Amino acid sequence: MHNIKLVVAYDGTNYFGWQKNNAGPSIEEEFEKVLSQILQRKIVLQAASRTDRGVHAAGQVLNFFLPEPPSLKLQHSLNALLPSDIRVLTLEETEFAFHPTLDVKSKTYRYEICYHPIQLPQERFYSWHYPVSLNLHEMRKAAQMLIGTHDFTTFCNQKKNETYKDHVRTIEELLITPQENERLSITISAPHFLYKMVRNFIGTLVYVGAGKLTSDNIQEIINQKNRVLAGMTAPAHGLTLQMIRYL
Amino acid sequence: MHNIKLVVAYDGTNYFGWQKNNAGPSIEEEFEKVLSQILQRKIVLQAASRTDRGVHAAGQVLNFFLPEPPSLKLQHSLNALLPSDIRVLTLEETEFAFHPTLDVKSKTYRYEICYHPIQLPQERFYSWHYPVSLNLHEMRKAAQMLIGTHDFTTFCNQKKNETYKDHVRTIEELLITPQENERLSITISAPHFLYKMVRNFIGTLVYVGAGKLTSDNIQEIINQKNRVLAGMTAPAHGLTLQMIRYL
Repeated sequence: MHNIKLVVAYDGTNYFGWQKNNAGPSIEEEFEKVLSQILQRKIVLQAASRTDRGVHAAGQVLNFFLPEPPSLKLQHSLNALLPSDIRVLTLEETEFAFHPTLDVKSKTYRYEICYHPIQLPQERFYSWHYPVSLNLHEMRKAAQMLIGTHDFTTFCNQKKNETYKDHVRTIEELLITPQENERLSITISAPHFLYKMVRNFIGTLVYVGAGKLTSDNIQEIINQKNRVLAGMTAPAHGLTLQMIRYL
Repeated sequence: MHNIKLVVAYDGTNYFGWQKNNAGPSIEEEFEKVLSQILQRKIVLQAASRTDRGVHAAGQVLNFFLPEPPSLKLQHSLNALLPSDIRVLTLEETEFAFHPTLDVKSKTYRYEICYHPIQLPQERFYSWHYPVSLNLHEMRKAAQMLIGTHDFTTFCNQKKNETYKDHVRTIEELLITPQENERLSITISAPHFLYKMVRNFIGTLVYVGAGKLTSDNIQEIINQKNRVLAGMTAPAHGLTLQMIRYL
C-alpha cells in the first residue's frame, strides 16, 4: 500500500468543520467525494486536526492509502474538482508508517483580531471584531503565564463525546504580534490541545487586554480548573490552523 | 446646507461596481437606499472614484448634503443597516465647498498578486492568481518607465461613454512590494487615472515579470499609443481603492 500525504488549505466559512456530521457540509466529505470520483474507489481520510465549524486552515495535513502509486496529475485533478474554497497545496507519497495525527510534533494556530471601532468588510470572515481598546502589555504578561506545561482544565470546553486522560498540555509558543491599525495576530503552538482550548485562550487574553481580567488573575484561574473563571470562547472565524510540524 | 463627508470600505465581490446600473447591484444604490430610509428624504451621493465591478475599497470618499447638521448616531445607524460587505469608516461634516471628485490631490490603488502555484482559498476574492515565476527586478525597471508624466493612451481602454480631453497623466508612485511566499503588492498613486489604466499597468507589469514583454519595450509601448501592445487587463478582484488624499 502507498501512503499519500496532503497539505491542504480551506476557507471554513461555509463548512460545519473538517469532520463529516449530520448538521451540514464538511471539508472531509468534499475530499471523499472528489477522491472517490477520481480514483473510483472509496477513500478513507485521516486529518491532523478536526477543525471546528467556521475555522480555516492554511496547512492542514491529511493522508490516505492507495494500492498503487499516485498519478502525477492527482493534485491537479483534485484542485480542478474541489470547490474553490478548498485547495491541495502539496501531495506526495510518504513512508508507510506516517500517521497525520499520531506523529504530530507540534500544531500552530493563528488568530486574527481587529479592535479598531470599524472592521474592513474584507476581514469579516477571517478576523474577530472586538472594538475595545486592548492593552497589549497586559495581554503579553498573561500569555507568559500560559506558556509551558500546565493542567489546562480551565480552558477545556465540556463535550460529551470527548474524554481526556488528563488535561495537562504544553504550550510551546504564544506570540502576540501587533499589526497596523489596531489589529493583532496571536500565534499558538503546542503538540496537543484540549477541545476549544485555543479559542478559550484567545477569549481570556482579550478579556485581559480589555481590563475584564488582569494578568495577575491568570495563575489563579489556571489553578481553579473552572471553565467559568476564564474569558469567553473567541469566535471560530478568526482562527486558522496554520501549520503542522512532524520533524 | 451641510456637507457630509464619508470614508467608506467595501468588499466589491458581489457588486457591479460603485455606480448605479441596470446590470446588477451597486454600492451607490445600497447607500442611497439606507440613507433615504434613515433620513426620510432622497439623498444624492458623489464619490471620489467610480470603482468597477468586483473592485474593492478600503478608503473610498463620498459626500452628500443635508439641510440640518448630521446626527451623532448617523454613522452607527448606517453601519447597522448597510450589508456587512459595506462599512462607513468615518463620517463628519466638512466645509461646504468640498467636492470628493474635483478636490482630489491623489488617489492610491493597491493590487495584490499571488504567483505561487497554488493560491490560498482565503485570498481568492482579493488577489490575482497568476502562477508563473515573476522577475521582480524586471518589473521594477518597467515600473520606473511608467512613473512621471506621460501620454498613457496605450493603457486606456476604449469605452463609448467616456471621452478624455487628453491622455496625459502623472504617476506619482508605483511601488512593487514583495510579500511572503511568492506574493506581491503593487501600490500606484496619481491625481487622475484613465479608464482601466491601473489594471492595464498591472497586466503589463506582470507580462514583463513573466518574460512576455521586457522592460526595454515599455518606452516604445508608451510611444506607440496602441492598447494592443501592452499587457492584458488584470482582473478586478485583485484591486482595492486604498486612499484618497485631498491636502
